[in-house]
Amino acid sequence: MLKISILTIGDEICIGQIVNTNASWMAQQCSRLGCDVIVHSSIHDDKELIKIELNRLLEISDVVLISGGLGPTSDDLTKPALCEFFDDVLVKNQDALDFITKMFSKRGIDMLERNVQQAYVPSKCKVILNHIGTAPGMLFEHKDKYIISMPGVPLEMKNMFEKFVYNFLFDLIELRKENVLAFKILQTIGIPESVLAEKIGNPDLFIQGGTLAFLPSYKGVKLRIGFSANDFKTANQLISEAENYIRQKVGKYIFATEEVTINQVIASLLIEKNKTIAVAESCTGGLLSANFTDIPGSSKYFFGGIVAYSNDIKTKLVNVDENIIKRFGAVSKETVESLALNVRKIFNSDFGIGITGIAGPSGGTKQKPVGTVWIALANKNSVYSNKFFLGDDRIIIRERAVTTAFNMLYKSLIDN
Amino acid sequence: MLKISILTIGDEICIGQIVNTNASWMAQQCSRLGCDVIVHSSIHDDKELIKIELNRLLEISDVVLISGGLGPTSDDLTKPALCEFFDDVLVKNQDALDFITKMFSKRGIDMLERNVQQAYVPSKCKVILNHIGTAPGMLFEHKDKYIISMPGVPLEMKNMFEKFVYNFLFDLIELRKENVLAFKILQTIGIPESVLAEKIGNPDLFIQGGTLAFLPSYKGVKLRIGFSANDFKTANQLISEAENYIRQKVGKYIFATEEVTINQVIASLLIEKNKTIAVAESCTGGLLSANFTDIPGSSKYFFGGIVAYSNDIKTKLVNVDENIIKRFGAVSKETVESLALNVRKIFNSDFGIGITGIAGPSGGTKQKPVGTVWIALANKNSVYSNKFFLGDDRIIIRERAVTTAFNMLYKSLIDN
Repeated sequence: MLKISILTIGDEICIGQIVNTNASWMAQQCSRLGCDVIVHSSIHDDKELIKIELNRLLEISDVVLISGGLGPTSDDLTKPALCEFFDDVLVKNQDALDFITKMFSKRGIDMLERNVQQAYVPSKCKVILNHIGTAPGMLFEHKDKYIISMPGVPLEMKNMFEKFVYNFLFDLIELRKENVLAFKILQTIGIPESVLAEKIGNPDLFIQGGTLAFLPSYKGVKLRIGFSANDFKTANQLISEAENYIRQKVGKYIFATEEVTINQVIASLLIEKNKTIAVAESCTGGLLSANFTDIPGSSKYFFGGIVAYSNDIKTKLVNVDENIIKRFGAVSKETVESLALNVRKIFNSDFGIGITGIAGPSGGTKQKPVGTVWIALANKNSVYSNKFFLGDDRIIIRERAVTTAFNMLYKSLIDN
Repeated sequence: MLKISILTIGDEICIGQIVNTNASWMAQQCSRLGCDVIVHSSIHDDKELIKIELNRLLEISDVVLISGGLGPTSDDLTKPALCEFFDDVLVKNQDALDFITKMFSKRGIDMLERNVQQAYVPSKCKVILNHIGTAPGMLFEHKDKYIISMPGVPLEMKNMFEKFVYNFLFDLIELRKENVLAFKILQTIGIPESVLAEKIGNPDLFIQGGTLAFLPSYKGVKLRIGFSANDFKTANQLISEAENYIRQKVGKYIFATEEVTINQVIASLLIEKNKTIAVAESCTGGLLSANFTDIPGSSKYFFGGIVAYSNDIKTKLVNVDENIIKRFGAVSKETVESLALNVRKIFNSDFGIGITGIAGPSGGTKQKPVGTVWIALANKNSVYSNKFFLGDDRIIIRERAVTTAFNMLYKSLIDN
């Protein structure tokens, strides 16, 4: 397998001011290609450290992918470090300079000397054009190994990866007839990790030579099956056999086999079945609506929502009978069903969802502790609801409430 | 300065299936203590690789912090690797075993042999008790250097760090009289990075010996001032002088000097000034409400919201005159002001916010391209609104619209 090291350069990563999403994104892309990502390393903007780290990573990997440190200011040291590492000199690259010049003139901004300097690159590198920023990327070959340097701005790095690096790695794997490492994701919803593991049973019985990993989150548990082989066809055949076994055990909890979210799956189902929805949410406070509307084109099926935090608003805007709230409480079967039924009518949609609960940290009682959440799903003919206990952390309760509501809707959509 | 390396172990990190939030969180804590975090390294669950990496990191740092690979399954190899690294044997730790036993009995679950095994640790380590999980942490000393191994589950790692590691590092810095590296964050809102840099001018004029970094995001631009010195008092004095200089130039854009969000700052201001709010949002689809309600106790000042995606709902639920929408369009000054004014009345709050715009990818026209967003803020006596162009990516447009609305509200709250 092609061995890849990922080197991200920048003080803001070292001190923890930002989360290193570049490294995980690059690793994902490399994994899709069947490469083995052996190291993620993050270091300071420091020329000597960069050179030492390049030396180490070239020893243990076939390709070193770098992001960061290519900006126009004095704390950007990746290019000088690469230049010294290869004992090279900087030369003007006309293509890069033309592109930068055009970019500035388009925006009507005067070009500074430091911008011109960005078009100077080590003579031994091949320039990778940056189509959306001023820092060109660089490809170096060194004794059949490669270093690729990209900007740290995520959109620029991703653009360069998709336009150049992906194909470069693909061709290298073909050329060298490297083994590939293939994965498949099975995404589950509505079942805890331990119960899932119990139902699947001992992995050794069906996945010899491969790997099975469990990755729990508040959006469900992902299963990852992995096999390596001469080619993707063989690896995928082995994966497919393991998948069949798993599906026999827990098939009904699997909602997707790729890195889509339950949000996207539900969006597709609503469109496919030509159904529409509206929501009335209390403790999730807009988060359920936001999860529906983060999908482009959601106005087709998401008619709207009401964030009804107070009892007053539940009555006034969602027409919940105030006697129901008085008698059963705001967090009750009666209130939540009323929210779901009424919001559906108000928005004239096919489905209505109601959520009411106690996200905490305050507001809990002995009978209704923090984490108690009622969720109801209504359609034209009926409504049903369930009570859930979703933990004791506000953020987690809200996330789980959204996932749980999505699971209720998902099941209803696939059952029909 | 105390040099720290952070080693995160796990295939799911290497292949990019998860984003490495553990590393950034640990780095943040170490930075708060004035340590110099020199490396983040992530590697596979592989015993030989772990031993090689430990060797390298101990060479270059004073303390190596490890997370991951302590679970009860066969792919968890950090403990055996540490045991081999120190040429040690596993022994039973009674405290850890008692705790695990108690934990299982509380939950009424039978304890398995593999759970008992978790209480076995290398004889040379000091056990760090895990108060919320089954894998104990481990502290090793080696020639005046230290290795601390923690679980990969973020909540368990954080708990262990806060209860033990933080104090351990604090004491070590005191004992060794290490230099410290201090930072201060100045958070700005409502000004682009380039304009901010232009207004502040050349950093060399006021921050010699220290560093100034710009960290832009959709929530605003953070400035980070850094100085190292014998002690925090001296470092903070230097920071304070640089801060004064910066405040003279761009003080009015600075809304916070710590890692709080604008959401939290607005929540505090609303409570302090005893004001309440309601929102009517179209293109942000619940995201503005969700940003208000992600703060505990938000029901005190956030009366609720209406997610009015369609024109019909704008009219029916937020009482926007349908002739206004017909004549000026849903994305217009007239519509957005009507949304803000009406939602304030409906919820009987002090403020009302209206947002309407085109988040894309479809729906744009030549006159109103994707990214056009109108935002209005109303109080009892008046309303004002502004048109913004917030880019061409759906996610970014929605995030920026929320930040822009928060900025309008923030300015209004501090002006009064």
